Amino acid sequence: MPPRFDIIAIGDAIVDVIATCDDAFLAAHGLPKGSMQLLDTEAAARLYAAMGSAQETSGGSAANSMAGIAAMGGRAAFIGQVADDQLGAIFRHDMEALGVDFDTPPIDPALGKPTGRCLILVTPDAQRTMNTCPGASHELGGATLDEARIADSAILYLEGYLWGPEKPRAAMLRAIEVAHGASREIAFTLSESVCIAGRREGFNRMIADGGIDLLFANEHEVLQLTGDSSLGQAIATLSAKVPTLVVTRGADGAMAFANGEGVEVAAAPVERVVDTTGAGDLFAAGFLAARARGHDLARCLHTGATAAAEIISHFGARPEADLKSLVQL
Amino acid sequence: MPPRFDIIAIGDAIVDVIATCDDAFLAAHGLPKGSMQLLDTEAAARLYAAMGSAQETSGGSAANSMAGIAAMGGRAAFIGQVADDQLGAIFRHDMEALGVDFDTPPIDPALGKPTGRCLILVTPDAQRTMNTCPGASHELGGATLDEARIADSAILYLEGYLWGPEKPRAAMLRAIEVAHGASREIAFTLSESVCIAGRREGFNRMIADGGIDLLFANEHEVLQLTGDSSLGQAIATLSAKVPTLVVTRGADGAMAFANGEGVEVAAAPVERVVDTTGAGDLFAAGFLAARARGHDLARCLHTGATAAAEIISHFGARPEADLKSLVQL
Repeated sequence: MPPRFDIIAIGDAIVDVIATCDDAFLAAHGLPKGSMQLLDTEAAARLYAAMGSAQETSGGSAANSMAGIAAMGGRAAFIGQVADDQLGAIFRHDMEALGVDFDTPPIDPALGKPTGRCLILVTPDAQRTMNTCPGASHELGGATLDEARIADSAILYLEGYLWGPEKPRAAMLRAIEVAHGASREIAFTLSESVCIAGRREGFNRMIADGGIDLLFANEHEVLQLTGDSSLGQAIATLSAKVPTLVVTRGADGAMAFANGEGVEVAAAPVERVVDTTGAGDLFAAGFLAARARGHDLARCLHTGATAAAEIISHFGARPEADLKSLVQL
Repeated sequence: MPPRFDIIAIGDAIVDVIATCDDAFLAAHGLPKGSMQLLDTEAAARLYAAMGSAQETSGGSAANSMAGIAAMGGRAAFIGQVADDQLGAIFRHDMEALGVDFDTPPIDPALGKPTGRCLILVTPDAQRTMNTCPGASHELGGATLDEARIADSAILYLEGYLWGPEKPRAAMLRAIEVAHGASREIAFTLSESVCIAGRREGFNRMIADGGIDLLFANEHEVLQLTGDSSLGQAIATLSAKVPTLVVTRGADGAMAFANGEGVEVAAAPVERVVDTTGAGDLFAAGFLAARARGHDLARCLHTGATAAAEIISHFGARPEADLKSLVQL
């Protein structure tokens, strides 16, 4: 019997709060353009008060990827922690409306951890600078995992943002055991937060032990994780450790390495880049959706590039166009 | 000394939840296209569960108008009731971020009246069908009114949607007394809910008593309020009762009548109509912003048409383009 889901993801369950700003605003608030930082409740309140009128949409990196996979016709499931509050209800609604299986019970808002949000500032050059107040999202625990769902999914996809805090990291490690026990493939998307000292060692040990079958990373993260100074060297180091390595390079396209071979794809053309939020998430969605159908690396890369091009041509990180007919899997 | 605000509005304080749908969805849920209906909590939950993935932005008819006036450089204030919850915080943030003075204290969410929301379904022909769950919004009471602010605003603008429920209607009647006592102008925007039997008589009595100086209505509402069968007759009936009558006609433009004279303007050209949500709100915003600067009817109509054209060229009811330089007041 084929597994119930093509892909099940564990990631931040977050509502995006998107506003435009100029470069001076980023500078005044000490926010490096294109970066992601974690904010505590007070810092988030201060930044929110200073930023412009916003638009809210459900977000979260791996959650965006699952939304994309469902939009492409894939069978996607998501595990992430929201609180029992208005933003949590919005997140749950959007997942279900998109056809993503989402069954993680919410936590009590009285615990003081409301549903997480990400304050996203988009500059006129379409770059997004993300400021995440994770809230409930980092309270995901191993006890909440639906292990039967994980065992019944062809690919387990893990989001690096959750590798930082101890509780969800432990949950992800348990999920890896469950998935490997059921002979499933484990995919992991790096984030800078995985690559900082302390966490880096644990992560490198895990990939050395064969914990990850498929690793997504951008150029910057590959360099940070390996500590190498050239991209070529860093790719050589990493691809010796993971069966499949996928490196995204923004406007320069993407590359994949497996079994000693490398494949490269150019970025798909976009009429006007409006907002790069979600580019990496939708790239991963396209790659994984194609992989779940058994396509080769070139087709997986191409599908990822097509999905990423759709998402950066409009505001927000959830697909608007008919992705299913765009990618034709 | 000039008044502190050009315009102060009383209206629904609501967060819009916008999703696309097809005509069959509207038919299946018995929703007449282009209409507005009030939903109780259960009906709203049912419709929300059935509708697609959504985008949230602050809304409310008169609140949208005040956002537009601030974007055009006018001094705008807003009075409306939210609850002390996440959607209420979003509404407040967006008002303040747009430069609209908003000082109405929130009500306790334990009262069971959360911040109101409007489920807006946009069909491929850009028509919006609105399903409002008013929540806290209809709990606005006279005691909450900041009468000093009302007296210190050149124009008091009242939203017809609040004429239905008794509590906010009483608050609006008190606000009219305060504004007239300070020799301010009273503007009112009709909504179908003002025009239904029972409410219609009270409203007609109020305008007969000189309660309204400036009335906004669309063609449909003018016919409903007067009970006349031809638009010409209805306009003649109404314009005899209010010093200034403004009638909006969608793609056919708008007309204004004052002192026995009529002025007409065509709709401003739009490359592609994406979503008509907010067209009437932004029309009123442009008209009022120009009027507060002492412009004549033709200029007021023209400014309204320009602002309406901006809002229907994108998703959502809050301005995105630089309205200030568009209207050049």
